[in-house]
Amino acid sequence: MIANTPAPPYYAVIFTSIRTEVDKGYEEMANRMVELAALQPGFLGIESARDSLGISVSYWDSLENIRQWKLVAEHRLAQELGRADWYSAYKTRICLVERDYGFER
Amino acid sequence: MIANTPAPPYYAVIFTSIRTEVDKGYEEMANRMVELAALQPGFLGIESARDSLGISVSYWDSLENIRQWKLVAEHRLAQELGRADWYSAYKTRICLVERDYGFER
Repeated sequence: MIANTPAPPYYAVIFTSIRTEVDKGYEEMANRMVELAALQPGFLGIESARDSLGISVSYWDSLENIRQWKLVAEHRLAQELGRADWYSAYKTRICLVERDYGFER
Repeated sequence: MIANTPAPPYYAVIFTSIRTEVDKGYEEMANRMVELAALQPGFLGIESARDSLGISVSYWDSLENIRQWKLVAEHRLAQELGRADWYSAYKTRICLVERDYGFER
C-alpha cells in the first residue's frame, strides 16, 4: 500500500481535498481514476487516505507525463465533476521528490 | 484543513505509514507532534488523513528547517517509539513543491 517508488529524483502530485455531501458516482469514479492513472506512461504509484480530509499522492517519472495525465479525457471529466459535485475545496501540488527513506518491520 | 501555504517554491515532507495494532500513547504523541511542528522555524502547515494507510504532509520553507525538525529531541523520541511500537512500515519523502493550484467553492 506504500508505493514502491524508484530511487529519487521523481515527481509527486499531492492532491488534498474536502468532500461535499454529494456521493453520486464518486466512489466508482475515484476507483476508475486509480485504474486509469496506473495505465498512463510514467506512472510510478499512488497512495490515498481519507478521513475528514482526503490526501492522494500519485508518483510520476516526469512533469510531461503528469501533464499528459491531466489531459486524459476521462480524467478531465472527473475533474469537472469534482468541481461541480464532489469537492468543496481542493489543492494540487506538483513536487520534485529529492530524497526518500523508509522503515519496514 | 487544507494547509494555507505560500506561493511555491517551498518544501513538502510526505510521511506515509501503516500502523501496527499497538495504540499505547500513539494518539497523544501524534497530536503533540503536530503542536510541536507548528512551533518550529519554517513550518508552513500540515495535512493528515488516515484510513488503512496514513498520510501526513508537512510543509516547510527550507531543507535546513526540515533537518532541524527531524533533530528536535521530543520528535526523535517519537520516531523511535514509532519504529518500536506504532508503525509496521513507513516512508518519508522530501520534496520541492514547484507548482500548486486549487479550487474552493
